[in-house]
Amino acid sequence: MVDVAVPVRARELHLVGRPDPDVSEDHFAEVEAEVGEPGEGQVLVRNEWMLLSVVLKDLMETEPNPDLPMPAYALGEPPWAPTVGTVVVSRHPEVAEGDLVFHNQGFRQYAITGIGEWEGTRLDRDALPSPQHHLLISPGMTAWRGMVTVAGVGEGDTVFVSGATSGVGSMAGQIARCRGAAKVIGSTGSKDKVDYLRDLGFDDAFDYHDGSLTERLAELAPDGIDVFFDNVGGDQFSAALANAAEGARFALCGTLSRDNPVLEHETVIVKGMTIRGFISVYEPGDQEEFTAALGRWLRDGRFVFAPTVVEGGLAAVPKALVEQLGRRARGVTMVKLSDD
Amino acid sequence: MVDVAVPVRARELHLVGRPDPDVSEDHFAEVEAEVGEPGEGQVLVRNEWMLLSVVLKDLMETEPNPDLPMPAYALGEPPWAPTVGTVVVSRHPEVAEGDLVFHNQGFRQYAITGIGEWEGTRLDRDALPSPQHHLLISPGMTAWRGMVTVAGVGEGDTVFVSGATSGVGSMAGQIARCRGAAKVIGSTGSKDKVDYLRDLGFDDAFDYHDGSLTERLAELAPDGIDVFFDNVGGDQFSAALANAAEGARFALCGTLSRDNPVLEHETVIVKGMTIRGFISVYEPGDQEEFTAALGRWLRDGRFVFAPTVVEGGLAAVPKALVEQLGRRARGVTMVKLSDD
Repeated sequence: MVDVAVPVRARELHLVGRPDPDVSEDHFAEVEAEVGEPGEGQVLVRNEWMLLSVVLKDLMETEPNPDLPMPAYALGEPPWAPTVGTVVVSRHPEVAEGDLVFHNQGFRQYAITGIGEWEGTRLDRDALPSPQHHLLISPGMTAWRGMVTVAGVGEGDTVFVSGATSGVGSMAGQIARCRGAAKVIGSTGSKDKVDYLRDLGFDDAFDYHDGSLTERLAELAPDGIDVFFDNVGGDQFSAALANAAEGARFALCGTLSRDNPVLEHETVIVKGMTIRGFISVYEPGDQEEFTAALGRWLRDGRFVFAPTVVEGGLAAVPKALVEQLGRRARGVTMVKLSDD
Repeated sequence: MVDVAVPVRARELHLVGRPDPDVSEDHFAEVEAEVGEPGEGQVLVRNEWMLLSVVLKDLMETEPNPDLPMPAYALGEPPWAPTVGTVVVSRHPEVAEGDLVFHNQGFRQYAITGIGEWEGTRLDRDALPSPQHHLLISPGMTAWRGMVTVAGVGEGDTVFVSGATSGVGSMAGQIARCRGAAKVIGSTGSKDKVDYLRDLGFDDAFDYHDGSLTERLAELAPDGIDVFFDNVGGDQFSAALANAAEGARFALCGTLSRDNPVLEHETVIVKGMTIRGFISVYEPGDQEEFTAALGRWLRDGRFVFAPTVVEGGLAAVPKALVEQLGRRARGVTMVKLSDD
C-alpha cells in the first residue's frame, strides 16, 4: 500500500452545459462522488496532472466535430482528459501500488481504470524527471509523429511550424531542434507568444498578423523550408509552399484556419515535394523511442519544459478552460490535481 | 563488324522554325550530313527507333518552359530525342558492334555517342523482346517512379490515372495492373481514347468532358481511390481528392490543366493522405528492376504493347509531330527510323 489515505468520497467536475457559442464557467459543476473500489484487473489511481486540450471545445459541442477521432463529452459526467496519477490500490497483477499510470479519466481526483491498450497504461516513472513530464507524451507523440515519422526531420533542416504555441506545435518545434534542425521558425498570433517561442528555443518566430507571410518566410528562410509542420492551413500553407525547398516535406496536423489554400500543383511536382496529412495514431514502439529521447533532452536541458500550469486543483479548471479557449494559453496546458 | 554497310552521308531532321503558336511541318527540314567516325571511347549507332515526347512542343519554343528539367531545342540542329539503335562501329572497350544502345541523339539516321551516365547507355538486348520495346523504358521509368517508388502501388489498390492515354499515363495504368491493383481507372479526352484504354486493360475509363468528374469517380470507385497518378491537376485532382480512400497516395506527375485546384486541407489530414510531386529522376537500380519486370510482363502477355507507331522514317516525322501535338496520339509514340 502507498502511504496515502484514500477517502471514501472525492470531487469530480461534471459537464452540465454546452457552448452557446462560447464556453463559460457555468458549463461545469463540482460534484462529490464515491471513490469506489477497483475490481479484479483494475487499479485505483490518485490523479496528479491532467491535460487541457485545444480540441476540448469541439468535444463539448452538441454536434461534435466529426473529423476528430475522439469521443465527444456527455452531459452529467466528467469529461475525459489525458491524466497521470499514482496507483493507490492495485488489483492488477502487473501493476504495483506506487506505480505511475496514464489514463483518460480526467476531471476527477480519483479514477478506477483497467490496464490495457484502450484503458490505462503503466508508465515507467523513471523514464522522465517527474510525473508532470509524462503528460507531455500525449501532445508530444502527435508532434513526434508529424516531425519524425511523417516529415523525417533531421540534421540541417530548415523547419517552419505554424500555430507553434499550441501544445503540439511547441513540442514539434522543440523536437525538430533537438533532432538537429539547422533553423526552427514558428508562427503565432501575438507578440507575447512570439517571445514565448523564443524562450522555448525557436530560432525565429513571428506574429502572422504582421505583413506578408510569404515575404516574412522568404526573409527568415532564404534557402527555403525543408520541413513544414502545419497546424493552420490557409495562408500559412500557401506561404510555406511558396517558400518550399526542393524535396520539402509538409506534415499537415490541423486546420485552425478554415480557409482552404490553392495548391500550386506544378510547384509540388517541380520541387519534388511531399505533403502528408496525419492523425495522431501511432505504434507503441514509437512511444518508447519518443519517451527515451524526451527523457534525454529534458535531463540535458535541451528540451525547455515551460507548460502553462493551472494550480488550485479541480476548482480552478472552469476558469482556466475559458482562458485557454480564449487562446491565452501557451504551450502544453496542465492542471495540477493533487497537492503532492 | 556488324554486317551493315555504313554510308558516308545520312539524313537528319533539323529544327528550322518555332511554334507560332502551333507547330507545322515547315518547322523541320531534312538535311544530309556526314556520318563521321567515332572517336576513342565512342560508338557509331545506326538508329532504329525514336520516341516522340509530349513535351516536344515546349522544347521547341523560343522561351522554353523553365519547369522542364530538360534542355530546349536549338535552331539549325536535330532536336534531341530518346532513341535506340545498334552499334555498327565501336571504339569503346565495353561495347561491342551489334550491341543495342540507348541515347538522346534522335532525329537522325546515325549517331555518334559516348557511353556513360549522361551520354549513351548499353542495353541488355535480351531483357526485352525487341529493340522497339526498349524505348518503353524512358516513359516507363517515369510511370514506375510515380506508381511504385512514390505511390507504392500494390495488391488490391484502386487506382486512378488522369491523362491516361499519354505515354507515361498509359504505362502507369498498366504497371499498376501488373502489380496487382484491384481496379485501374483512366481518364482521357475522347471516346476513341476511352476505347484505347480498355484495350490496354484498364478496368474502366471515361472521357473527362462527360459530366461531373467527382460523381463519375464515386460511381467507379465506391470504396475510394487508393492511388492517384496525376498528369493533369485542376478539376481532376479535386475529384480524386474528394474520392480519396483513407491513406490514399497521390503521385503528381504533370499539370496539363493549368488550373490550380483548391486543397481540402482537413480532408488530407483526416484521410491521412500523402500527396507527392516528382520529376523523372531515378536510380540505376530502379531501372534494372523495372526492365526485368517489364520483360516478364511483355513475355507473359500481361503488359499490352500498343504504341502509336510512325512508319516511313524521318520523312514521316514532321506530319506525325503535328498530329501528336494535336493530341491524336495514343500511348507511347515511336518513330521507326530504319527498315530492318
